[in-house]
Amino acid sequence: MTPAKAYAELEAQERRASAISGALSILHWDKAVIMPSGGAEARVAQMAELSLILHGIRTDPSRGDLISEAGEGADELDDWQRANLGEIKRGFRRATALNTDLVEALTNCTSKVEMAWRVAREADDFADIAKPFQELVGLVREEAACLGGALGLDPYDALLDGFEPGLGTETIEALFSGLKDALPGLLDDVIEAQAAEPQPPEIKGPFPVPAQRALSRRIMTDLGFDFDRGRLDESHHPFTGGIPDDSRITTRYHEEDFFQALMGTIHETGHSMYESGLPEKWHAQPVGQARGMVMHESQSLLFEMQAGRSPEFIGYLSQAVRAAFDRNGPEWRGEGFVRTYHKVERGLIRVYADEVSYPLHVMLRFDLERALLSGDLSVAELTGAWNDKMENLLGIRPETDRDGCLQDIHWYSGAFGYFPTYTLGAFAAAQIFAAARAAIPNLEDDLSQGSFTRLLAWLRTNIHGKASRYSTDEILRGVTGQPLDSSAFMDHLKHRYLNS
Amino acid sequence: MTPAKAYAELEAQERRASAISGALSILHWDKAVIMPSGGAEARVAQMAELSLILHGIRTDPSRGDLISEAGEGADELDDWQRANLGEIKRGFRRATALNTDLVEALTNCTSKVEMAWRVAREADDFADIAKPFQELVGLVREEAACLGGALGLDPYDALLDGFEPGLGTETIEALFSGLKDALPGLLDDVIEAQAAEPQPPEIKGPFPVPAQRALSRRIMTDLGFDFDRGRLDESHHPFTGGIPDDSRITTRYHEEDFFQALMGTIHETGHSMYESGLPEKWHAQPVGQARGMVMHESQSLLFEMQAGRSPEFIGYLSQAVRAAFDRNGPEWRGEGFVRTYHKVERGLIRVYADEVSYPLHVMLRFDLERALLSGDLSVAELTGAWNDKMENLLGIRPETDRDGCLQDIHWYSGAFGYFPTYTLGAFAAAQIFAAARAAIPNLEDDLSQGSFTRLLAWLRTNIHGKASRYSTDEILRGVTGQPLDSSAFMDHLKHRYLNS
Repeated sequence: MTPAKAYAELEAQERRASAISGALSILHWDKAVIMPSGGAEARVAQMAELSLILHGIRTDPSRGDLISEAGEGADELDDWQRANLGEIKRGFRRATALNTDLVEALTNCTSKVEMAWRVAREADDFADIAKPFQELVGLVREEAACLGGALGLDPYDALLDGFEPGLGTETIEALFSGLKDALPGLLDDVIEAQAAEPQPPEIKGPFPVPAQRALSRRIMTDLGFDFDRGRLDESHHPFTGGIPDDSRITTRYHEEDFFQALMGTIHETGHSMYESGLPEKWHAQPVGQARGMVMHESQSLLFEMQAGRSPEFIGYLSQAVRAAFDRNGPEWRGEGFVRTYHKVERGLIRVYADEVSYPLHVMLRFDLERALLSGDLSVAELTGAWNDKMENLLGIRPETDRDGCLQDIHWYSGAFGYFPTYTLGAFAAAQIFAAARAAIPNLEDDLSQGSFTRLLAWLRTNIHGKASRYSTDEILRGVTGQPLDSSAFMDHLKHRYLNS
Repeated sequence: MTPAKAYAELEAQERRASAISGALSILHWDKAVIMPSGGAEARVAQMAELSLILHGIRTDPSRGDLISEAGEGADELDDWQRANLGEIKRGFRRATALNTDLVEALTNCTSKVEMAWRVAREADDFADIAKPFQELVGLVREEAACLGGALGLDPYDALLDGFEPGLGTETIEALFSGLKDALPGLLDDVIEAQAAEPQPPEIKGPFPVPAQRALSRRIMTDLGFDFDRGRLDESHHPFTGGIPDDSRITTRYHEEDFFQALMGTIHETGHSMYESGLPEKWHAQPVGQARGMVMHESQSLLFEMQAGRSPEFIGYLSQAVRAAFDRNGPEWRGEGFVRTYHKVERGLIRVYADEVSYPLHVMLRFDLERALLSGDLSVAELTGAWNDKMENLLGIRPETDRDGCLQDIHWYSGAFGYFPTYTLGAFAAAQIFAAARAAIPNLEDDLSQGSFTRLLAWLRTNIHGKASRYSTDEILRGVTGQPLDSSAFMDHLKHRYLNS
C-alpha cells in the first residue's frame, strides 16, 4: 500500500468512527432529554453496542501499520492532513494503551459508582460509597499508569492529556501558584467593597417558564445561534450535545430565578458556537474536532462571563428581560441591575460559584484528586481533607457531604484530571476576550446592543476555525502573543469587581 | 462447536443486531420529528454506517454454518427457540439473497427516486420521474428475481414474503376475487342509503392544536398506552417508531378537523400496543418481533375501525371531544355524530378513503404493481392504466397525477408488495374483533365507557404475545377457527353501513 492510500484508508476509518460517534451523541441527548423511562434498558444495550463497535474501529490492529505507512508520505500531505495524521496517531496510542479487561472493569465500576453516588448524595453520606469508590480509584490509578506508560507521561498527566492534549501538572501548578496566593485576598477585597455599596432591591419571581423559554431562544439568536442547525431543550443537567451541524443545547428553568437558566443557556451557546464553527471540511476527522476542554471552556466562559456579564451586555439583557416578563421598576435598571448579577459570595457549591471564587473550588479539587491517585490521601480521609481545605481556601466549612465531596459527579464517573480545565478555560477566555477587544473597535457598543456579530466572526477566524490543527498554546499565541496565562484573568477580575 | 453453542452464538448475534436496529429506529424517529434541517447530511451518514454494520451482521458468512450446526440440536431446543432458529434462517436466506452491488444500487436509486417523487408530486407531473422510476422498477425486478431464486418463490411472491411471511399471490387473488365482484355494488348501496338519511349538521372548527394534543393523550391513555413506555409527537407523516419499551407515535393536527388526527392517533396506538405487547423475553430475537404487516395492520385497524369507529366508542368520543373543545349542540351528539364519522364517499385518495372503498384502492395497486414488475405494463403506460382502473373500480377518474399514480410514496421508495397488507389487515381485524366480541361478554359496554382494558388483555394473550412464534394463519385459526378470510370483513361492512 502506498502512503497516500494508507492515509486515505485512515480517513475512511475516521469517517466511519465519526458517524458512529455522532449517532451515540444523538442517542445520549435523547436519553437525557426525551426518552421515556421504559426505554432505559434497551438504550443502555444500544449505546454499549455502538461504543464497542467504535472501540473496535479505534483499536483495529491494522491501524498501527497504516499510521506508519502514511507517515512515510507525510511530506506529500498538506498541513491539515499532516496534523490530522498526528491526531489519528495520538488517538490510536491512547485507545490501545488500555487492555480490554481494564476498559470493561472501568465501564462496569463507573456505572455502579455513578448510581451509588446518586443514592449517597440523596442520603447525604459519603460513607455509603466509600467502598465502591475505593475500587474505582484503584482502577483509575491503573488506567493512568497504563496510559502514562504508553504515552511516556506521569500517570496524572496522562489523564490530563485526555481532556486537554499536552497539558501537564507542572504547567498547571505554575499557573495556579500565583492565584492561590492572590485570590483569597482579592475575594476579601471584593466582598468588602460590595458590602460598602448600596444594596439593590431584590428581583423577585415568579418568572413563567414559557416566557423564560422564549427569552432564551431570543438571546441565543442574538448570540448567533442558528436554529436550523441546532435546538434548545430541557434536561436535569444542562449540556451541549449533538454534532456541529445539529447542536443540541439543554437548560433547566426555575420559576423563581430566571437568571440561572439564562446565563446557563449563554454558557452552553458558547460551547455550541465553538462546535458549529469547526471547519466543515474536517467535521469527520480528528483534526476537525474541538482542540480540548480548556479551549471549549474558554468559549463558554467568553460567552457567559466575559461578554455575557459585561456591564454593557447586562444592560442589554435588562431591557430584554423586562420585556419578556413584563416587569419594570428600579431593580430592573442601571447599575443596580448590574450589581445584582455581579454579586460575589463565599459559597460551598462549585456550580453556583461566581467567577472570583470559582478557581478556589477548582484548586481544592486539583490538589485532592492528585493526592487520591498517588495514594497520599485515602478515600476514608477524603471528607475531612475536603472540609479542611475548603475552610482554608474559602473560609467556610461544609456541614454535610452533599455540600462537600459529594457535590460533583466527576470523580464518581471516573473523571480525574477534568476539573483544572474549568479554570484554565477561564484564563484563556480572559486572554482571548482581551485580544478581541483590542482587535474589534468599540466592541462594547455591540454588546450594549446585544450584537455578537463582529465578535463571533472574529472567533470563527481566530479560534473556532483552527479546530485541532494547532495546539491550545499555538492558538493563544496567535491571537494574544502569549501562551496560556493567568494575568489577563486576574486583570479582568480586578477591573470588573474592584474598578481597578 | 456444539449445536447448543451454535444456537447461543446466533442469539448473541441477534442481540447485537437488535441493539443496532433499535438505535436506527430512534435516529429515524429523531430525523422525522425533531432534527433541525442542518443535521440531515450527517444523519444520512450515521444511518448508512449503522445499516452497513447491521447488514454485515446479518450476512456474516459464519452464520450459514452456525444455523446448520444449531439445527442439528433442534430437538433440544424449546418451541420458542426452535421457532426463533426458523426465523433466523429465514432472515439469513433473505439477507444473503442479494449481492452487495444490487443492494447498493437499490439504496442509491431509491433515494434518488424518492426525492424526485417529491418534486414531481409538487409539480403534478408523472413524466418528470418516468425515467428514474423506470430504472428503479428494473432494479426491483432484479431484486424480486434474486429473492425468488433463493427462496424458491415467484418473484412477486418473494417481495410479498418480505412484508408478510408466506403470503403469496394465489392467496391474495382468491381473497380479493369475491370482494372485487361484491364491493362496488355494496359501495353503491351504502352511498344510496346514506343519501336517504337525514344529513347531520356540519361540525365546524377551529379546534385549537393544544386542546387536540391533550385530547389525543387522554384517548391514548384510555386505550392502554403507557406514557412511561412511549411518546406522542408530531411529524409530517404519522407513524409508529421506536422499540417496544419506548414506542414513539406521531400524528399531525389540522385546526379545521380534529377527527383526522384523533383517528390517526388511535390507528397508530393500535400499532404501538402490538409492539409493546410482544413478549419481553424475546424482544431482541427474530421470534419476538411482530409477525408481519398483515397482523400489524390488523391491530391498527382493530383499534381504529373495528373498535374505534364502533357506534359505542364514537358515543364515548362525542363526550370527550365536547369536553376537550368546550362545544355543544345537536351535531355533537347521538346518531348524527356517529353518521358524520361513518360517511362513505367515492374519493381519489387512498389515505382519505373510508373502510368500504379502501379495498378498491388496494386492488388497483395490487394489479398494477404486478403488471409493472412482470413487464405487462410499461412505466409510460402507468398514468393511463391507473386512471382507467380507478374509473372502472370506483367510477371516478383522476384529473391530475397528484390525485392518481403520484399520490403514494410506496413504489417510489421501492416498496412493491406492500399494498395488499392494508386490506388483508382489514380482513384480519374484522375476524379478530368478531372473535373478541364472542369471547368478551358485553364488550360494547366497555367501548361505550371508553375502556379497552378487557379487549387489550384479550389481544395481549391471543395476538400480541404470540409474536412470530406462529404464522398469521395459525394465530387466526387459534382465535377464530379460520385462516385469513374476507367474510368477517364483508359482514362487518354490511352490518355497520347497511344495518344488515
